[in-house]
Amino acid sequence: MLDVIDCIKQRRSIRSFLPAAVPRTLIEKVLQAAVYAPSAGNWQPWHFVVVENSGQRRALAKAAADQDFIAEAPVVIVVCAEPARGEQTYGDRARELYCLQDTAAAIQNLLLAAHASELGTCWVGDFDEGAIAKLLQIGEPYRPVAVIPLGYPGETPNARWRRPLSEVVEYRE
Amino acid sequence: MLDVIDCIKQRRSIRSFLPAAVPRTLIEKVLQAAVYAPSAGNWQPWHFVVVENSGQRRALAKAAADQDFIAEAPVVIVVCAEPARGEQTYGDRARELYCLQDTAAAIQNLLLAAHASELGTCWVGDFDEGAIAKLLQIGEPYRPVAVIPLGYPGETPNARWRRPLSEVVEYRE
Repeated sequence: MLDVIDCIKQRRSIRSFLPAAVPRTLIEKVLQAAVYAPSAGNWQPWHFVVVENSGQRRALAKAAADQDFIAEAPVVIVVCAEPARGEQTYGDRARELYCLQDTAAAIQNLLLAAHASELGTCWVGDFDEGAIAKLLQIGEPYRPVAVIPLGYPGETPNARWRRPLSEVVEYRE
Repeated sequence: MLDVIDCIKQRRSIRSFLPAAVPRTLIEKVLQAAVYAPSAGNWQPWHFVVVENSGQRRALAKAAADQDFIAEAPVVIVVCAEPARGEQTYGDRARELYCLQDTAAAIQNLLLAAHASELGTCWVGDFDEGAIAKLLQIGEPYRPVAVIPLGYPGETPNARWRRPLSEVVEYRE
């Protein structure tokens, strides 16, 4: 049991992992939280490739700008969007906007559910989409949009700086 | 106090609102949760226009495919991305991917924090970006990416169907 506001504020990006395995029940718990995200027209344009294979994890790290910490995690989740899903309802806006927003909302749920389970994650966006698709044989209709290492944290980072609300919010009364 | 997993699973899209005002303290609470989202390189490419003015809320609803329920909410938050923020670090990927993902993660935090405060929200994506930018005088460097009515719920919808994990998850052992 972890209060949602506390969870949102305490979550950190984790870049060091312990070798301990993550039980499948916990992997499914965080994925179940992910798919409770809202999506445009409830199209749910997401697909998750859960990589436990150590050779593939090392190759993923290499395809993600050599960020070696990714392979340290016992599980790496490659989150994919399905850009054509919802296209018949929403056209280009489904491809270019909604599928990216919907998968991002799912990822945020996943990060929060992981933190609530004492697991660490890091949202990695800097990777070669083509290389990862080839490596994991992810073909049409999917597009890899994020790489999320998942494991028990090997570090406890401080909170990062946030821009104050006075800088990012304006009111229209 | 609301458990994060329960919050994720209990949140609904709300399309009917009571007229009761939302105190500024609660508006700031949900925005504070929003800005705790992670962002690529911690660039935080977001901007929030909080519309309380009733004429502007009606005009927003009109610019959002005439979804009248939007104007029922006493507060409508127009979430904007700042596509150029992070561009010097990440180039086109900041404009086309990261700023959309980062704002979506912030929105998901906002929806969860609102639900924890017994407030309802609906993530609206179907709107005329140019019309809303003009209406609210949102100019460069911002792009409106979501319209979020916020208020006390006037309905208690059932959970929407979710695709089962067996359909959206694959493992690489």
